[in-house]
Amino acid sequence: MDVQYDVIIIGSGPAGLTAAIYASRANLRTLILEAETPGGKLTKTYEIENYPGIMKISGVDLAMQMMEHSTNWGAEMEYEGCEKIVPQEGYFEVHTAYGNVLTSKCVIVASGTKERTLDLPRAEEFTGRGISYCAVCDGAFYRNKDVAVIGGGNSALEESLYLTQLVNKVNIIIRRDVFRAEPKVVEKVRNNPKINIITKSLPDALVIEDNKVKGLVIRNVDTGEKTTLECEGIFPYIGADPSTEFLKDLGVLDARGYMVVDDSMETSIKGLFGAGDVVAKDLRQVVTATNDGAIAANSVARYING
Amino acid sequence: MDVQYDVIIIGSGPAGLTAAIYASRANLRTLILEAETPGGKLTKTYEIENYPGIMKISGVDLAMQMMEHSTNWGAEMEYEGCEKIVPQEGYFEVHTAYGNVLTSKCVIVASGTKERTLDLPRAEEFTGRGISYCAVCDGAFYRNKDVAVIGGGNSALEESLYLTQLVNKVNIIIRRDVFRAEPKVVEKVRNNPKINIITKSLPDALVIEDNKVKGLVIRNVDTGEKTTLECEGIFPYIGADPSTEFLKDLGVLDARGYMVVDDSMETSIKGLFGAGDVVAKDLRQVVTATNDGAIAANSVARYING
Repeated sequence: MDVQYDVIIIGSGPAGLTAAIYASRANLRTLILEAETPGGKLTKTYEIENYPGIMKISGVDLAMQMMEHSTNWGAEMEYEGCEKIVPQEGYFEVHTAYGNVLTSKCVIVASGTKERTLDLPRAEEFTGRGISYCAVCDGAFYRNKDVAVIGGGNSALEESLYLTQLVNKVNIIIRRDVFRAEPKVVEKVRNNPKINIITKSLPDALVIEDNKVKGLVIRNVDTGEKTTLECEGIFPYIGADPSTEFLKDLGVLDARGYMVVDDSMETSIKGLFGAGDVVAKDLRQVVTATNDGAIAANSVARYING
Repeated sequence: MDVQYDVIIIGSGPAGLTAAIYASRANLRTLILEAETPGGKLTKTYEIENYPGIMKISGVDLAMQMMEHSTNWGAEMEYEGCEKIVPQEGYFEVHTAYGNVLTSKCVIVASGTKERTLDLPRAEEFTGRGISYCAVCDGAFYRNKDVAVIGGGNSALEESLYLTQLVNKVNIIIRRDVFRAEPKVVEKVRNNPKINIITKSLPDALVIEDNKVKGLVIRNVDTGEKTTLECEGIFPYIGADPSTEFLKDLGVLDARGYMVVDDSMETSIKGLFGAGDVVAKDLRQVVTATNDGAIAANSVARYING
């Protein structure tokens, strides 16, 4: 059996790209598979201020720098999603979305998480034209208009701040009356005159006119009272779920779908590793992703060198 | 009781500085204590090629960038070593080398490791004048001369490569006949014409003439045969031990002196955390240190906010 790669890395966010840097520096034949845009969640992040050593950088720039860094040492990259991983005796088959079957001694899954979608009638129909899950990608479509951001976590607030540079007004809709975000970010949001905070509220229905999003009906969680908010763009940041559909038969996921790994980032299947946001853990940051990627690649090198 | 700080961070390497970035962004009153040079082990590293997003940077430059980044958000910094940590009811006393007693709700120990010193007669006497533990700091003193590097790990090889730019010849002395370092680095070392590799050997005695280091007697580990190597500089890279002397009475160390922490980087003492190289773990890298610092600071924020 001629195994093609030492390691196939699924996903090219900070975890996957760091794994690629470490694996290729260890002279391992390394392939990165990316289903969408290289950089993972970074590419959907306006600004990063807590990657140590780089005071402030756009998510896209940091992604491109990591991307260039990772392939500089010899890692290959293919733009294909992963459909299935089949453990074989001493190696793995990786089945891609285009029907290719690749073989590798080890696999590092760094497929990250996917934003939860808005659960309202007709929400799917208007995704990409009125509803967006990426302020950085789509914010410019709403220049000088009013928009709504749903959610009170770091992502919601950071993207709200980004949107204030483009739009007329950002309405942030949160279920509670406190934010679940870094105090420094909350401070900036509270001090921004373009931001209007609507507490104790949930989205209830879309307002559609002339086949366009024109507003959002919101419901007060205490009184049940419904009001209509005029807005032409809606940005839900209501949490994320791990992208692990292709792993569901392998017995390596917890109840929420996150990968369970040990200190060396290995799953219960020898040679199969997880790294980054896709792993069950408390804190999901660029620095925790790069950590995981380095450890996983180091473990792969040990596994392969016996 | 008026506690001065929310968190005191002991040490300002990548772990301590990242903890400071995250703690100060979380609006915690943060003090960094540094006994020597800010940047920790980074300042003794010539070049970093595996910090994702930065293709190549000198250790000193990365240290300075992280340093600036960490204090930018409001963390304070004092140049004092830590002598003792005394847990009190709901806070800690941090006793400094200058006799000050500081108080803090939490402490993050990120004091790193210290290089093992050469165990030969008169080695201590000639440290700083013939024997050096920092090629980046002292390499220039040996311009166009012959030097010996002792050790076969990543540090030994990376610093040997650095020294080739300054000295006439680098003799690397290793105990085995293989290196315990990244293949890419080993490759560079083997291809460098200024490097001479002496395998299966250990340092046996210093050769001193006119009160100066003039050579090193080495002993073959198989035959016991002794030979004299002419060299004016000796750089031992023979491992490191954790800097945890000041923690020895707290019951938070393992047999080798490393700090034992859980997934949130907390020790068995509530409010006392560890981060970076000082922690018992497998892989010690800049990315694993920044990871630990972020997690520890995040855990401190949770601890303080209940």
